[in-house]
Amino acid sequence: MIGRLNHIGIAVPDIAAAIGEYRLFYNARDITPVRDLPDQGVRVAFVNLDNTQIELIEPLGDASPIHKFLERNPKGGQHHICFEVANIHDASAALAAKGATIIGQPRIGAHGTLMVFVHPRDFHGVLIELMEPVPPASPH
Amino acid sequence: MIGRLNHIGIAVPDIAAAIGEYRLFYNARDITPVRDLPDQGVRVAFVNLDNTQIELIEPLGDASPIHKFLERNPKGGQHHICFEVANIHDASAALAAKGATIIGQPRIGAHGTLMVFVHPRDFHGVLIELMEPVPPASPH
Repeated sequence: MIGRLNHIGIAVPDIAAAIGEYRLFYNARDITPVRDLPDQGVRVAFVNLDNTQIELIEPLGDASPIHKFLERNPKGGQHHICFEVANIHDASAALAAKGATIIGQPRIGAHGTLMVFVHPRDFHGVLIELMEPVPPASPH
Repeated sequence: MIGRLNHIGIAVPDIAAAIGEYRLFYNARDITPVRDLPDQGVRVAFVNLDNTQIELIEPLGDASPIHKFLERNPKGGQHHICFEVANIHDASAALAAKGATIIGQPRIGAHGTLMVFVHPRDFHGVLIELMEPVPPASPH
């Protein structure tokens, strides 16, 4: 079932500052523009590496799910890791059958494909995102 | 300067249990045997994904640097991310010149190549490992 590591999600109090730190310290040049995702309560930008992405996540709005994490980690920190799965419904049903706790229902995520989170309590404290991979661009 | 994401380091209280969770929930099959690294105070195993690795890390010995992390995160959690750099001495000198805090001196890590850690205080709370990539196997 487990596929590629699509990205690592990193929660930060100030996304512009974090992007600046990637540029300054690591000469990162391929960083997507910051995008507001009000439905999810976050602002995100992706640092593109050769083999995966870093997702920088800043809370957006008072109800953002990231506030609690930043209360515990005021400077920021690693928030989740995201694995690709071929079919989000099959994968989450199989996980739930084995005793994992799926958080809510699959929905469209930052990449425009279906995603869902799996609770860290069943998986040595690590929050897992599952997502269906982005289809290759059409030639037309 | 920034290269591939070589691996994500995840600290766990019980490496055998964490390996079991990767097998049970995610059908992970390509997991290296557990190795003791007494010089570093850790036991490690790598979950091989298509594009990167997950390093599972259990403390080894009373002086393990992982104990403090597990006191704050008793179930385990994401501990560091590791970027590949062509030359560890050049990379750490460049980072130090820009104000980053390099932790100790470059040394041989779990992959048999030179590595060093960069303090999270300068980088939105995320501990970074830098490592020189493993050279391709010789054909002879």
